[in-house]
Amino acid sequence: MSDPHLTLEQTHALAMRILTRHRIGEAQAQAIADTVTHAERDECKSHGLFRIPGYVKAAKSGKADGHAVPLIKDLAPGVIHIDSKRGFAPLALKTAYAPLIERTRQQGIAAAGITNTHHFAALWPEVETLAGHGLVAFAFTAALSYVAPAGGTKPLYGTNPMGFAWPRQGHSPLVFDQASSASARGEIQLHLRDGKPIPEGWALGPDGAPTTDPEMALKGAQLCFGGYKGAAIALMVELLAGALIGDLFSFESTAADNGDGGPPTGGEFLLCIDPAKTNGAGSNALAHAEKLFEAIMAQPGTRLPSDRRYEARKRTPEEGITVAPVLYEELQRLAAQ
Amino acid sequence: MSDPHLTLEQTHALAMRILTRHRIGEAQAQAIADTVTHAERDECKSHGLFRIPGYVKAAKSGKADGHAVPLIKDLAPGVIHIDSKRGFAPLALKTAYAPLIERTRQQGIAAAGITNTHHFAALWPEVETLAGHGLVAFAFTAALSYVAPAGGTKPLYGTNPMGFAWPRQGHSPLVFDQASSASARGEIQLHLRDGKPIPEGWALGPDGAPTTDPEMALKGAQLCFGGYKGAAIALMVELLAGALIGDLFSFESTAADNGDGGPPTGGEFLLCIDPAKTNGAGSNALAHAEKLFEAIMAQPGTRLPSDRRYEARKRTPEEGITVAPVLYEELQRLAAQ
Repeated sequence: MSDPHLTLEQTHALAMRILTRHRIGEAQAQAIADTVTHAERDECKSHGLFRIPGYVKAAKSGKADGHAVPLIKDLAPGVIHIDSKRGFAPLALKTAYAPLIERTRQQGIAAAGITNTHHFAALWPEVETLAGHGLVAFAFTAALSYVAPAGGTKPLYGTNPMGFAWPRQGHSPLVFDQASSASARGEIQLHLRDGKPIPEGWALGPDGAPTTDPEMALKGAQLCFGGYKGAAIALMVELLAGALIGDLFSFESTAADNGDGGPPTGGEFLLCIDPAKTNGAGSNALAHAEKLFEAIMAQPGTRLPSDRRYEARKRTPEEGITVAPVLYEELQRLAAQ
Repeated sequence: MSDPHLTLEQTHALAMRILTRHRIGEAQAQAIADTVTHAERDECKSHGLFRIPGYVKAAKSGKADGHAVPLIKDLAPGVIHIDSKRGFAPLALKTAYAPLIERTRQQGIAAAGITNTHHFAALWPEVETLAGHGLVAFAFTAALSYVAPAGGTKPLYGTNPMGFAWPRQGHSPLVFDQASSASARGEIQLHLRDGKPIPEGWALGPDGAPTTDPEMALKGAQLCFGGYKGAAIALMVELLAGALIGDLFSFESTAADNGDGGPPTGGEFLLCIDPAKTNGAGSNALAHAEKLFEAIMAQPGTRLPSDRRYEARKRTPEEGITVAPVLYEELQRLAAQ
């Protein structure tokens, strides 16, 4: 028997049905269902329907408020602040877009700090959305402590992703979205499930020594990608998504978390630049950038960071998606409750 | 016989004497001599007096203009542009600081694009200077093509450093400044000189295969740190220091260079944020950040990225610096011409 199959419309409807039955209001649920459906559309399974049970857990435990209405505040001509009021990140992001885009076009550069939020998705949706409006966009968020600092052996940083998007004329934006850790935590869990050793360089055991044993890795500390340089990026992400905007560091989020399995509380930092306002030569930044992309693609073996997602996006609106049977059962149970 | 020894004052005077004797005017020479002396002070030898012959070469060949006066232009409330007019970067940076700091305090966030310049130093001087004024600072610059894109085998990107600084109360700023390449080009050259193989992961040979032979590495392509994630950072740096501000990509700088051995033409992008304008909780971002630094330092084996430079900085004002004999001879020759 083949895996359960859904159209993107059915995916969205299933997400809505579950979320709204579990203490999440219409507005928050719509924003979450959009994010989850977009992840399935792009075949980013780990941020798709797989996340729905976690959203439900955080709402049911009362850690997150599924009925929260984000509050926008001006901090400076180029800086806005969105208090997510313990709601989930997707609605806070949706709230941030219009004023952030407007400020960026006015000022040439602008930033938004989103605090008091529960982020449980990738960062490419937000940077791609902003770049869809012709802006260069960055996003940073921290999370639960899993990753050792440079030279250290104990968890301190989150997996601390950063997202970046560059707008393209007549083409979807160039986007990357990458954790500062060498691997996603889920990849280590998959190795454990499959009884396979993890590659060297991913983690230290609880004794502080390098390990290829996924069980020891999960009890110990993950490592940053690229050694001390990746650790510097992780540190930067902590500062931007934490102290800079007035939210928690990963180790503080961990201390504050109730362990319900849903997304912890934390912050997200968005930064936007209008490439029509930064080009000192008065030339077209976007047209110029295409020459770089051509030079990259002229080398065999290369691809642009977001190409794989865009290829999936061509297929799934017609072909639909499949859901792992165990997850599908869990979703059906949640939908029926 | 021990290596030649100089005080920091003598270092600065020697740099000034050489630069002003070789077609570099007083203002440019002062800014370069400051930068070079600060590098020697912090024991960053590869950006110290070692760079003086390169500045001279670029001025003598006419590639750079040692008498250029940078021109500031407003592009938006949060964006300024500095046309370096073919001058060296240190004076353009000095010109950028005051207006960039002022804009950042007004707007909360601001950026400066420096174009048409010759950058031949590290990025920590500029981000540390800006953070010394209480601002969070980023700097990005591209350079000659030495580094392959993700999946590719031929040089395309520069070593593409990014610098980041976070201001600290009662302490020098936290600063990192790191190339997107796995190693500095100079490190490969040192391995060649010493007849030692380079570590795996640094480079590909001209045939596109991984190599540990430094000679093949220099003829082939360097690799980014941390695989495709470091390559994404390199790509971002190209876009920010190139198309965004209206300057060249690394491969275009390479094509435009006259091969005189001095710094090529290119751009630099500076971005500043005022942490007093971004904290949505109204709390003190800098005081909060100290808790993260304490948590890092509480783990044995850790240090903050800039600590080594700051330790050197305590010693060299009293102890002075030493200069490699071969370099010292070359500098004496240039000073006497």
